[in-house]
Amino acid sequence: MRFSFPLMALGLEVGMIVLFGLFAEYETSWYDYQPNTTQITESERFFQLYPLFQDVHVMIFVGFGFLMTFLKKYGFSGVGINLFVAALGLQWGIITQGILHSHGEKIQIGIKNIINADFSTATVLISFGAVLGKTSPIQMLIMTILEIAAFAGNEYLVGEIFQATDIGASMTIHAFGAYFGLAVAGILYRSGLRKGHRNEESTYNSDLFAMIGTIFLWIFWPSFNSAIAEPGEEQNRAIVNTYFSLAACVLTAFAFSSLVTHGGKLNMVHIQNATLAGGVAVGTCADMDISPYVAMIIGSIAGVVSVLGYKFLTPCFAAKLRIHDTCGVHNLHGLPGVIGGLASIVAIVMGKSKKSTIAMQAAALGSSVGTAIVGGILTGLILKIPFWKQPSDQNCYDDSVYWEVPPEKEYERHFQLHNMLEPEA
Amino acid sequence: MRFSFPLMALGLEVGMIVLFGLFAEYETSWYDYQPNTTQITESERFFQLYPLFQDVHVMIFVGFGFLMTFLKKYGFSGVGINLFVAALGLQWGIITQGILHSHGEKIQIGIKNIINADFSTATVLISFGAVLGKTSPIQMLIMTILEIAAFAGNEYLVGEIFQATDIGASMTIHAFGAYFGLAVAGILYRSGLRKGHRNEESTYNSDLFAMIGTIFLWIFWPSFNSAIAEPGEEQNRAIVNTYFSLAACVLTAFAFSSLVTHGGKLNMVHIQNATLAGGVAVGTCADMDISPYVAMIIGSIAGVVSVLGYKFLTPCFAAKLRIHDTCGVHNLHGLPGVIGGLASIVAIVMGKSKKSTIAMQAAALGSSVGTAIVGGILTGLILKIPFWKQPSDQNCYDDSVYWEVPPEKEYERHFQLHNMLEPEA
Amino acid sequence: MRFSFPLMALGLEVGMIVLFGLFAEYETSWYDYQPNTTQITESERFFQLYPLFQDVHVMIFVGFGFLMTFLKKYGFSGVGINLFVAALGLQWGIITQGILHSHGEKIQIGIKNIINADFSTATVLISFGAVLGKTSPIQMLIMTILEIAAFAGNEYLVGEIFQATDIGASMTIHAFGAYFGLAVAGILYRSGLRKGHRNEESTYNSDLFAMIGTIFLWIFWPSFNSAIAEPGEEQNRAIVNTYFSLAACVLTAFAFSSLVTHGGKLNMVHIQNATLAGGVAVGTCADMDISPYVAMIIGSIAGVVSVLGYKFLTPCFAAKLRIHDTCGVHNLHGLPGVIGGLASIVAIVMGKSKKSTIAMQAAALGSSVGTAIVGGILTGLILKIPFWKQPSDQNCYDDSVYWEVPPEKEYERHFQLHNMLEPEA
Repeated sequence: MRFSFPLMALGLEVGMIVLFGLFAEYETSWYDYQPNTTQITESERFFQLYPLFQDVHVMIFVGFGFLMTFLKKYGFSGVGINLFVAALGLQWGIITQGILHSHGEKIQIGIKNIINADFSTATVLISFGAVLGKTSPIQMLIMTILEIAAFAGNEYLVGEIFQATDIGASMTIHAFGAYFGLAVAGILYRSGLRKGHRNEESTYNSDLFAMIGTIFLWIFWPSFNSAIAEPGEEQNRAIVNTYFSLAACVLTAFAFSSLVTHGGKLNMVHIQNATLAGGVAVGTCADMDISPYVAMIIGSIAGVVSVLGYKFLTPCFAAKLRIHDTCGVHNLHGLPGVIGGLASIVAIVMGKSKKSTIAMQAAALGSSVGTAIVGGILTGLILKIPFWKQPSDQNCYDDSVYWEVPPEKEYERHFQLHNMLEPEA
Repeated sequence: MRFSFPLMALGLEVGMIVLFGLFAEYETSWYDYQPNTTQITESERFFQLYPLFQDVHVMIFVGFGFLMTFLKKYGFSGVGINLFVAALGLQWGIITQGILHSHGEKIQIGIKNIINADFSTATVLISFGAVLGKTSPIQMLIMTILEIAAFAGNEYLVGEIFQATDIGASMTIHAFGAYFGLAVAGILYRSGLRKGHRNEESTYNSDLFAMIGTIFLWIFWPSFNSAIAEPGEEQNRAIVNTYFSLAACVLTAFAFSSLVTHGGKLNMVHIQNATLAGGVAVGTCADMDISPYVAMIIGSIAGVVSVLGYKFLTPCFAAKLRIHDTCGVHNLHGLPGVIGGLASIVAIVMGKSKKSTIAMQAAALGSSVGTAIVGGILTGLILKIPFWKQPSDQNCYDDSVYWEVPPEKEYERHFQLHNMLEPEA
Repeated sequence: MRFSFPLMALGLEVGMIVLFGLFAEYETSWYDYQPNTTQITESERFFQLYPLFQDVHVMIFVGFGFLMTFLKKYGFSGVGINLFVAALGLQWGIITQGILHSHGEKIQIGIKNIINADFSTATVLISFGAVLGKTSPIQMLIMTILEIAAFAGNEYLVGEIFQATDIGASMTIHAFGAYFGLAVAGILYRSGLRKGHRNEESTYNSDLFAMIGTIFLWIFWPSFNSAIAEPGEEQNRAIVNTYFSLAACVLTAFAFSSLVTHGGKLNMVHIQNATLAGGVAVGTCADMDISPYVAMIIGSIAGVVSVLGYKFLTPCFAAKLRIHDTCGVHNLHGLPGVIGGLASIVAIVMGKSKKSTIAMQAAALGSSVGTAIVGGILTGLILKIPFWKQPSDQNCYDDSVYWEVPPEKEYERHFQLHNMLEPEA
């Protein structure tokens, strides 16, 4: 048992190397590059996209990673397992997406693939949020493999078969990742934690570390929504629309956070998460000619819905549906992702895009949510097999189960001891 | 009273959506984009500028945001209210700048506008530093609206009427923001805090969080000073000059921090702030043909002046002028901004730029400082109206007035209780 | 003595300004820029490289800076002295590299120089890791001047005389910086710290601050390895190879961290450092046509070697060779740098590059390690002169010797006092 995680990780890496050796090669269109040509070569396009790729890369590793450091004793896992999952996931994403899209040819690896590989990891990182603190590294490793395969399948279905449009991936990444994670969380439900857990809370510093994640996600979201858009007009609109949707979302998220919180105060969970909902919700429509003010309306609605979700839906899910969603991914990715899909239907009805049809957008939304739920349930059942070193209820939300953690300071130990003897509340 | 902040925020967002619906549209020059043309199209220019925009975006949200987390109990507000103010300010900046510059046409939103929108928020964030810990979110919301309107007016005067040059905005953003903030701080002066406040201090961790802000501001300042420069020679010079000015500034700031501090030690306030003064001071001249070594001289002087300002001027302002400047924005933005304006006059005298005249640069400097002071006084008077939920003197520098804050750890509570009963010094 | 640091810093800055005044000017090739030409002008190349430069810039100042904040009481120095050393080093790097490469002409400062200037600082920052906590700011200032001069000489030898290839600088920066630092650390060995030091440990928060450094280094390493590559095919391969090498390295580093750690846990030192070894090791071969799967093999090996180095070699170096390597730079930069050089020899044997020969690559590796060791020993001897305010053994790893540090909280003081009276273990 002691060796199961490292051996699985090594085995997977060996597997990846073999798969890359068999199926992957460098994109060859670079070979035509000549320094003094007059065309926009592939190489120039590479350099136009590379900064957007790096923005997305920051979102995946810093954004998601630090966003999940908000728990007082689970920061190492938040940022560390995020790194592990994403590093594994991006390799597997290249293979799964590549095989589906390359029609039997070798996978040509260029800037578009590595952007899409980063995207594919986002699904698992979203789902990770739903089960944060309640799973082992081995479980995350298994989930990465299963979820990215399911993602690649659904993405192929949505993009190639339905020919639907989802440029910022509101449906295929955000809704998919959220509902997949919720399904897993539902299967892995622990009734022993029904009344909460003493480590499931933040500290002042852990909330500030989480804000590093929030702010970097917020800043670079326009790159996320535009990275694979058509160059020119559409890509530019994707940037502008996301920029304004996010700005509007901040205002409504702050306003509703104050409205629903005792004493009119602001709540860090809302600020860390709901301010980002505008980036999710505008995703599907981001490259459409919807006008900036419509992007702001979409962002405003997303901010409101997300805060209300945190306040009312998350506790209800835990109590009624027995789905405990640690980070509230349903409110940040699930609902706003669905809003994104619905907004795209409205936009097509209004004639803002001719790239898809109402039926195909609806099919894309249904497929994304449906595949996620089915895939999440199956994955949850596999993860429930008692081999995977799941933490006991007692050990949830605690890095020290899987990490060497610096010793507590003496005065902390002193009071923790005291605390164990005479526990509060 | 409980609902005043959220309702004002929602009302403003609705207002912004209406204004954008009436006055804004996508830039249309994208429509001529064709993948295989041989010209540097607008689209290519977009992709040249987009990374610079993202650098500025990081400065606004991560740089300013985390720089203001240095207070031990005011980090949530530092980074959170920064986000709120900037998200509101960038929408309003598009409108105010757009209406002044668009001559009755619709505002064409492209990459230049969103860069300028980010710039406009910088003024308020600088002023926020002067009043940090002493204002309510509502006051900041009002200040955002008033200050950006004043900024847009002054920027139009400087750029369009005076035809002055201020590429890195030493005068129109940095000096303007600082003197505006100082004027507000002067009006809002609290004699009850004359002897200091027990929460107006940093901790080891809060100083490290603030360094995140410092370093990101330092790194990306070349992008700030070059983002709206003429492509080619001038934009490149703006980057190179800023790079070297900042490097030189670090050396003199460290040296003078050690010189003026007890025991020759380094002082975190100086390192967090004065190392950035070189970026401010070289701003106005950044695109001029001044030679790299002159940029280094400007940066060196700025580092010295800034440290001396923190050591001697800030306490003097508080004691004599009854202006309490929490972050010392006068030393980071005010004085270096004035140095920037003066340096541009010297540069024009020396024939390094033909873009403006001595008189027009002097007018620009005078107008920026003057508008700021008058605007700041008027804004301060409005903010002093006792409706806006200002914190009591006792509650200054304390997030828990406006935020839900994680409970203190037990041993902290224990000693704080003990502390209240038997206070120190 | 009190004034030695500030006066040396000011003197050096004056010296830099004089040197720049005499020897440096803006690159003049910008002058041919015309907005509507059809060629890929230097200006366009500037904008292709500027985002890569900024990525490297983030690595130098955020990456290295925060990586060195892992010690519980040495975070101010970690990020602060890093800033100081890099700001001094980049100016000096321009001069030393420029004089060697400009053949008597003035140094033409453009984007390539400032990328290379940032690179040159990396050597000192790596060496800084080996002596972290055991040197004074003055010692670091002297080391910066000496090491960058030695680096520039070796880099000239490797690139111009040997005509060797080392695109990601595995040998000339990483191995060089590591062995230079180890040689200095060996000379400055303190037998008084043989049994460790109570401050040479991390806290939960300091480990999270360090992860900020790790993650930003990890993300932007593809830019580091590709920034000065030939545009087109080679630059793209450098990015793709580094991306996959790093991903593979994460998996093996996690796996081996768990394998070698008590109870199969993960160790933060490994995760913070060994996950980056893949970026170092793939450096020399990064632009070669080695296939992505070979990049993954290189990264996998580097991750394994690095973890094993931390576990077994570092304690052995301290005990047997009397070389105490605070950050373990030998495992992150030294060994992976050597692997990088060896990998390039294998790649040339296999016909993957015609840019260099086996002999010249071997000469480059030997020269880099040899120059580093000799230069490090000489530098160490100079640093050992007892003028430079070295901290006493007692005061090692403690910011408060050189920085004003916020007062400890009352309960911390209470227990520290208690601790001094009745020390543990």
